[in-house]
Amino acid sequence: MISVEEALRIVLENQLPDQIIEVPLLEANGKVLAENIFADRDFPPFNRVAMDGIAINMSFLSVISEGDKLLIENIQFAGEPQKTMSGNGNCMEVMTGAILPENTDTVIRYEDLDFTEIEGRKYAIVNIPLSEPGQNVHHQGIDKSAQSLLIQQGTKISPAEIAIMATVGKDYCKVKAAPAVAVISTGDELVDIHENPENHQIRRSNSYMLAAALSESGIKARLYHLNDDPEKLENRLRIILAANDVLILSGGVSAGKKDFVPQIMENLGVKKLFHKVSQKPGKPFWFGKSEYGKIVFALPGNPGSTFLCFYKYVKPFFSGLKQETLKKAVLSDKIFFRQELTLFVPVTTRCNEEAALIATPLKNSGSGDLAVLLSCDGFLELPASEAIFEEGKSFSYINFK
Amino acid sequence: MISVEEALRIVLENQLPDQIIEVPLLEANGKVLAENIFADRDFPPFNRVAMDGIAINMSFLSVISEGDKLLIENIQFAGEPQKTMSGNGNCMEVMTGAILPENTDTVIRYEDLDFTEIEGRKYAIVNIPLSEPGQNVHHQGIDKSAQSLLIQQGTKISPAEIAIMATVGKDYCKVKAAPAVAVISTGDELVDIHENPENHQIRRSNSYMLAAALSESGIKARLYHLNDDPEKLENRLRIILAANDVLILSGGVSAGKKDFVPQIMENLGVKKLFHKVSQKPGKPFWFGKSEYGKIVFALPGNPGSTFLCFYKYVKPFFSGLKQETLKKAVLSDKIFFRQELTLFVPVTTRCNEEAALIATPLKNSGSGDLAVLLSCDGFLELPASEAIFEEGKSFSYINFK
Repeated sequence: MISVEEALRIVLENQLPDQIIEVPLLEANGKVLAENIFADRDFPPFNRVAMDGIAINMSFLSVISEGDKLLIENIQFAGEPQKTMSGNGNCMEVMTGAILPENTDTVIRYEDLDFTEIEGRKYAIVNIPLSEPGQNVHHQGIDKSAQSLLIQQGTKISPAEIAIMATVGKDYCKVKAAPAVAVISTGDELVDIHENPENHQIRRSNSYMLAAALSESGIKARLYHLNDDPEKLENRLRIILAANDVLILSGGVSAGKKDFVPQIMENLGVKKLFHKVSQKPGKPFWFGKSEYGKIVFALPGNPGSTFLCFYKYVKPFFSGLKQETLKKAVLSDKIFFRQELTLFVPVTTRCNEEAALIATPLKNSGSGDLAVLLSCDGFLELPASEAIFEEGKSFSYINFK
Repeated sequence: MISVEEALRIVLENQLPDQIIEVPLLEANGKVLAENIFADRDFPPFNRVAMDGIAINMSFLSVISEGDKLLIENIQFAGEPQKTMSGNGNCMEVMTGAILPENTDTVIRYEDLDFTEIEGRKYAIVNIPLSEPGQNVHHQGIDKSAQSLLIQQGTKISPAEIAIMATVGKDYCKVKAAPAVAVISTGDELVDIHENPENHQIRRSNSYMLAAALSESGIKARLYHLNDDPEKLENRLRIILAANDVLILSGGVSAGKKDFVPQIMENLGVKKLFHKVSQKPGKPFWFGKSEYGKIVFALPGNPGSTFLCFYKYVKPFFSGLKQETLKKAVLSDKIFFRQELTLFVPVTTRCNEEAALIATPLKNSGSGDLAVLLSCDGFLELPASEAIFEEGKSFSYINFK
């Protein structure tokens, strides 16, 4: 039996080799970028007017006093080629997003101006004193310079990255392809969702839960159900293994007389990397890799165990990250747990006034309790090395809502 | 000009009437449930064996001492109809997930047992003393009883809800349908993503950002770009308004001479519910509703403003929630801001050892700075009523990663 830390390390060390595909920009959201993105031009690419108003030449004027009156020469709209102001002491009306006119360096916004007309000529009257040039101009290259690295490959793509890639003209981009994943439930007690179970049967739920959770990682899984007949199980799993990169099984890995999965995996050439993790729930978790590099997660079948193992191990495996982001939450009630196992406690969480995440343990009947997961926001991870977990102390937290 | 709180209240008061559709279970993930889900049976539906081992009748035996030897009568596998133990002092081998045999009430797991064979008969030898009945049995109805309400309509569906609905046999379920949404960028300075911009032009990025962000709310938006010609703009917007439930515009709402959107909306019978919010960025934000109940968000076109307005107003509008969940983060550096505006500061965040979210303001060049959004996890909301924001104080936080 290995520790939780060791199990996670082994899972993350065995991530699949990258398969790269090129997708239209809008299909890239949520995926992992597989190329570096560089600035094709400066950000912004020209001295850009940042407010509607007038542009003036402060280098020439030096100082503007309240009441100063400036002749309006012309208007520079957004999307127009750059115009030039000919009189150094004049001004140009300018619109947000426009290129700053040649021979101007400063923008005064409409809110600080009045307008007047004298002998058919239009003037702007300035209502605030001004002595520094450059205000309300978004200067060329101030945010990023041309050719600089904007987004590193390996970044998870969110709407901000989509906006940047649009700006630099990436109508297609390279991303990591989703692997082919099969989700397989086992267990003779399970019937399908549209069937009426006998008294001793239940409908299967784990494979639907896993498929829904995988879809949040951008993976469309194939679903299978196999009964506990070792010969059929082996034959079907051989075929499923050949057609997929990753298998996620639920059930059939514990100490029961029909828990055939570990033996069958060995028969199929899938090498066990570990079996049993010192954790509760999810102790019988089995993990292996075939000689062709295919990965098998065999998760214990109790819903609480399947849930925990998915969010603790499987989701980080697919995220492609080498390390998880640290998340913590504060335990709201003292817990005693004397077994030498890492205890994952289902909790509901809230953010307090001091911005700390407070985790309240949920009463439950063990890993078979599916209903508790409805009100559960995630699991608090209480280390195996301790037995008393004090109220007010913070622990690692895995959220799934 | 209205306050941020008032603006959000008006937005959330004008949510669209529900359109309900029925979808296959796996398509429901991430959507809002539009029916109540009840338990069709008890949870669990029978006294369920929770560990592989033996079942005994503790009501009859009263006490088990270390070394006690029990005759194994039979095996109860998962998925088999219930068997009956005939001898009160015997035991039955039982597998996890099986129905507990008739005439038994307690399970002892394999880890606490040895086995022996005497004269062709198999016996289990118990290694731990035991005096209470009921252990390792997941009792019928302990988690939920039949007919009880499991999931309330209006709940956002996550993998836990999917698992519950599978268990109660909901292969289809009712959810709120995604509205028809058009995303429209305006501005003569914008060219399309695959074009080569002239020196005074930039590629459009807001509409791609908005489309990506909407897809995370389960909405597939239609994208349009319109130039700043008032007549064409009005004609096209009339058609787009007729074909969609919600319009999200970016650009054209400020004080510029080509900011035609507010006037055109009035011409099209879209009543202004507010224009201008006392916030930075995003002050010129315009919001309205047509006589047919169609909703128009006209967001300022600077990327920082568009981003903020989307996550602060548009996303909560589509989430269908009447109230946002409180999220807070701790400001890491003192900020002065003397204008009477709510300041939304782009921040990067991390969770500290005490489980508090620490927000560090990001240096940026204003709402035109698109590149800053790459390293930004969200916005910290600093209220308009104050001017000095102390390091170590916590404030409302809007995250978007």
